[in-house]
Amino acid sequence: MLVVMESNATDQMVAKVCLVVESMGLVAHPIAGAQRTVVGVTGNKSKIDADKIFAQPGVRDVIHVTPPFRLVSRDYRAEDTVVDVGGVIFGGKECVIIAGPCAVESRDQAMTIAEQVVAAGAKIFRGGAFKPRTSPYSFQGLGEKGLEILDEVRDKFKLLIATEALDTESLDTVASHADIIQIGARNMQNFSLLKKAGRLNKPIILKRGMSATLEEFLMAAEYILAEGNPDVILCERGVRISADHTRNTLDLSAIPYVKRTSHLPIIADPSHGTGRKDHVIPLSRASIAVGADGLLVEVHHDPSNALSDGAQAITPEMFRQLMSQVKAIASVLGRSC
Amino acid sequence: MLVVMESNATDQMVAKVCLVVESMGLVAHPIAGAQRTVVGVTGNKSKIDADKIFAQPGVRDVIHVTPPFRLVSRDYRAEDTVVDVGGVIFGGKECVIIAGPCAVESRDQAMTIAEQVVAAGAKIFRGGAFKPRTSPYSFQGLGEKGLEILDEVRDKFKLLIATEALDTESLDTVASHADIIQIGARNMQNFSLLKKAGRLNKPIILKRGMSATLEEFLMAAEYILAEGNPDVILCERGVRISADHTRNTLDLSAIPYVKRTSHLPIIADPSHGTGRKDHVIPLSRASIAVGADGLLVEVHHDPSNALSDGAQAITPEMFRQLMSQVKAIASVLGRSC
Amino acid sequence: MLVVMESNATDQMVAKVCLVVESMGLVAHPIAGAQRTVVGVTGNKSKIDADKIFAQPGVRDVIHVTPPFRLVSRDYRAEDTVVDVGGVIFGGKECVIIAGPCAVESRDQAMTIAEQVVAAGAKIFRGGAFKPRTSPYSFQGLGEKGLEILDEVRDKFKLLIATEALDTESLDTVASHADIIQIGARNMQNFSLLKKAGRLNKPIILKRGMSATLEEFLMAAEYILAEGNPDVILCERGVRISADHTRNTLDLSAIPYVKRTSHLPIIADPSHGTGRKDHVIPLSRASIAVGADGLLVEVHHDPSNALSDGAQAITPEMFRQLMSQVKAIASVLGRSC
Amino acid sequence: MLVVMESNATDQMVAKVCLVVESMGLVAHPIAGAQRTVVGVTGNKSKIDADKIFAQPGVRDVIHVTPPFRLVSRDYRAEDTVVDVGGVIFGGKECVIIAGPCAVESRDQAMTIAEQVVAAGAKIFRGGAFKPRTSPYSFQGLGEKGLEILDEVRDKFKLLIATEALDTESLDTVASHADIIQIGARNMQNFSLLKKAGRLNKPIILKRGMSATLEEFLMAAEYILAEGNPDVILCERGVRISADHTRNTLDLSAIPYVKRTSHLPIIADPSHGTGRKDHVIPLSRASIAVGADGLLVEVHHDPSNALSDGAQAITPEMFRQLMSQVKAIASVLGRSC
Repeated sequence: MLVVMESNATDQMVAKVCLVVESMGLVAHPIAGAQRTVVGVTGNKSKIDADKIFAQPGVRDVIHVTPPFRLVSRDYRAEDTVVDVGGVIFGGKECVIIAGPCAVESRDQAMTIAEQVVAAGAKIFRGGAFKPRTSPYSFQGLGEKGLEILDEVRDKFKLLIATEALDTESLDTVASHADIIQIGARNMQNFSLLKKAGRLNKPIILKRGMSATLEEFLMAAEYILAEGNPDVILCERGVRISADHTRNTLDLSAIPYVKRTSHLPIIADPSHGTGRKDHVIPLSRASIAVGADGLLVEVHHDPSNALSDGAQAITPEMFRQLMSQVKAIASVLGRSC
Repeated sequence: MLVVMESNATDQMVAKVCLVVESMGLVAHPIAGAQRTVVGVTGNKSKIDADKIFAQPGVRDVIHVTPPFRLVSRDYRAEDTVVDVGGVIFGGKECVIIAGPCAVESRDQAMTIAEQVVAAGAKIFRGGAFKPRTSPYSFQGLGEKGLEILDEVRDKFKLLIATEALDTESLDTVASHADIIQIGARNMQNFSLLKKAGRLNKPIILKRGMSATLEEFLMAAEYILAEGNPDVILCERGVRISADHTRNTLDLSAIPYVKRTSHLPIIADPSHGTGRKDHVIPLSRASIAVGADGLLVEVHHDPSNALSDGAQAITPEMFRQLMSQVKAIASVLGRSC
Repeated sequence: MLVVMESNATDQMVAKVCLVVESMGLVAHPIAGAQRTVVGVTGNKSKIDADKIFAQPGVRDVIHVTPPFRLVSRDYRAEDTVVDVGGVIFGGKECVIIAGPCAVESRDQAMTIAEQVVAAGAKIFRGGAFKPRTSPYSFQGLGEKGLEILDEVRDKFKLLIATEALDTESLDTVASHADIIQIGARNMQNFSLLKKAGRLNKPIILKRGMSATLEEFLMAAEYILAEGNPDVILCERGVRISADHTRNTLDLSAIPYVKRTSHLPIIADPSHGTGRKDHVIPLSRASIAVGADGLLVEVHHDPSNALSDGAQAITPEMFRQLMSQVKAIASVLGRSC
Repeated sequence: MLVVMESNATDQMVAKVCLVVESMGLVAHPIAGAQRTVVGVTGNKSKIDADKIFAQPGVRDVIHVTPPFRLVSRDYRAEDTVVDVGGVIFGGKECVIIAGPCAVESRDQAMTIAEQVVAAGAKIFRGGAFKPRTSPYSFQGLGEKGLEILDEVRDKFKLLIATEALDTESLDTVASHADIIQIGARNMQNFSLLKKAGRLNKPIILKRGMSATLEEFLMAAEYILAEGNPDVILCERGVRISADHTRNTLDLSAIPYVKRTSHLPIIADPSHGTGRKDHVIPLSRASIAVGADGLLVEVHHDPSNALSDGAQAITPEMFRQLMSQVKAIASVLGRSC
């Protein structure tokens, strides 16, 4: 850490900062520059909670050199984490494709879509039973009935099931039906939910918040690992920018950044990441090309009758094209789908 | 609502859209333009869930004319809502100042600060017992012990208490101690929490999410009103932009916009809204000048020893200056503090 | 166009809007809804300058249905524009790779890098002679001497030359040396420069502004086409978001959006688009995978001694890897590099 | 400056960085921490061009402690700069109100508006003769004829004239008619224009770019001062965020930040800063309350017939209200209007 003093800070102020640093069990290295003094701080193993130092008189800025990550950091664990979900491996050579509708709407709808996506090569079926919706008047999901339908999908098609948990109250119920639990962008900093998910023995897909920095994203994962659950799969799903040609902007640079900074696997969601069905295939290709460990894709056999997010769902036929193209891209990188 | 067709959409596609619109109990008005056809939709009382229409072949875009708000809308209720919290009125002539530390750290700390802010004219004391923190390793608040300290503050200084509820599990506990419950920016779209808060009989301060549009912000309030709780006080607390001179950017245009669109009171939080103590007083003046119904300000008697957010807490002395300046500004607008 | 009236707008206000619309030679279609009246406007061939309508009493909003583009629009020209630069074709089956240093620093530096990039397969050499720099004290480029060095590179290696024009004053000079003229992100709305570039008989690479919408970006290209120069190659080079893990965020969704909306070719700049050399190769793969017509890449044989942007320049060896990977990706899409 | 090494950087890499630092005439202070080494750099008088250091092997990040500003910095000049424009003082006790139409449309229009704004207390008249427009088909201003009309306004009403220069070619012409030259947001980093403006003997209003950081904004001013013109008035005019309730978001925190970091005066433009006439008065109050040295406001006597920006122009009657309110706010701060 580096403490930057004001250009008019007195020697006493610098001395006080050094004292505070040392009272925290750390070592202070004051360096007097031409314009101002800076105080280097060593001895910390992780990012320091610097509010106390920042609040000292004469301090202009506090700059963190050590990132705040512990367990999620590649410094902590050099080799890639692989998350094994019933034999399907995230973070290895394979790019794992998760596909299915935004929401489970009915037994028939789920079965119809599942049949098509499994035929096209998806290994995991997604479908929301509990849906976060901007409006209280929109369809909120089938709830537990949706989870039961997902169980039937698993049984019939030997597909693994990924579905979202919205709150701490329903987390255990969701966990008892899902093979992978999704935590959505709006809940990325729902710390109570993260902590409880960290006490489960189930893999978690954690989605990046809509304006989250990657430091915040990785710290949200840290909450889960800190409680004892190492099986976190990160998911880039687009951020907000001022342009409006897509609902969100898929930030593909997040993927090489995370790969370098953390050992956790990371996938991409080109459906939410663009919000437009005509962008899903090109951005799926790009996600695999940039190095994502998989995709989370919304597929609906009848998007014009979907109860939610019909505008971004691709048809089973488009999904088959997607699979064929991403397989070819993956093989360029020495990977499979 | 307006459905914009592609320039190459066929007559059948337009007819199909009209059919879908009418199947929803609405009226379709196709208008053929020089480049493309648009279909006006009337008959709706609120924003339509348009995914189904958007997903029809030949549809380029769906434009909402009617905003999605119902209960929070000024169209629904023309006069200002006033929220009465034990005799302190939000949304009336008075600008209500809420002040106190970021977190309750100890009985002594809370009492010391409360004594100073009450003397300076604050009517409501703020202090977090449950704290949302980016890092799992940061101070997470005193929990119930913090709530008990807040009870003592109320008793001793006749101050009302505002404190944050982080999750559905602790909401009832918080409600049993607080006069006003804060829902933080990270929880603005924690719909489970909003619904449960909507079933309480306590005023709620709802903070805008870090990258939320005002439509999303008002729809989050709609969740609370829809469950039966009309006492919502909105709070602008800064949004994220690409510049980095402040932690967040206080978007003061939100205040006249909300005043025009909704009947709910709205206050500003210049502490989180800037993240820098040297900006709190000028932005407090600006917030009152723009028309805010009050302020939420972090005050600490010893910021350099604060356990959280010391960089943005002002001292009691600065708070006295703030009060004197905002009183003068308020009086220009015919209001008091 | 659609004119949305306030819910309390009077019949006279609606009538006045219709009158104004008709005075502009257009047709007004008032539609009375449950909450408000909207007025559909037809008869326009392009986006209308709506300020006059917006300023009428009782008007809440004006919504443009027809995009403002004319000459750049795919509605105007259905087939792809191909820009032929001395036999190198942008917008056809080939993905064109442009490579070279950020700035021409010396004859030796330019020759060394040119030799390597031509050997690796680049068809066009980039190198700035006039450099836009945030600080007036940073290296501003070699100016005309730099252009002469670029002429030598062309002669020796049979490479085409792309270089930036910073202002109207030097545009003719740059044009007399360059095969392609770059207009940078900071100049995307330098309308005087765009107009003058539109009167040249040279292809232009137009870079997207740092926070430009795609509508603004295409309208900037419209300025060039409107003056008579059809040879515009668009370039996505990253936008600003609130996250800070990269200098800019490459918005790859711009590429399918532009392909659908316009007939112009579009390339990507993964060097400025990320600002980090370790991200250039993965984002180059992603750019080609998403459908870009080419890449603009910064290469330096000795990045640690580069006079500008050393942090984002890749070495010739990394460039060879890049070429081999993007060729493989391009072939998946039926394209070559 | 601080050079942060990778956690696996070798001793040789650290030594090489120290060597490079010292070859630049600076002093290197390596500090070995628990996780990584950092190298403090002293001896620099201003921000170092760090690309060369950043590009060394083993360097993870370079952190600037000294800001890059020289002449614009408060470290360079402690007292406030006052810009005297024919007796009207920016940066002193008075808040200067500049008002007038977006564009000069005709002699009559300019005279009508000037008469009203001078009566209401404006000291400086604004009106564009050369207009930057997103579309090449929009009204581009009256050009030199507009400048002549402005001369008549000056003569008749004893108002000073502020008008925009769009490019280097017309700068001298504009300078020969204007008392203050505006450089617009889109030209904030048109470095050729800034340099030429720096060689004039006229005050410059420099507007912040739409997504510019304050460091970039102040560095743009530095270009003008570095060429010899000290009379720069900064202008906050709103930035882009992802929310859409206003055209731009006025970032009022820029004002205290600039006041603390620089000695230059700064005003606010609530017209462009919101893009909505109903927001201009409240945001004008807020701008003065936060500490702005003046306002730039668009006024039109007949906004519904304005040729540009009618949606954000206020009427002369609204301008009178604005003046009366901002005078009252200014007096709270011990200032006048």
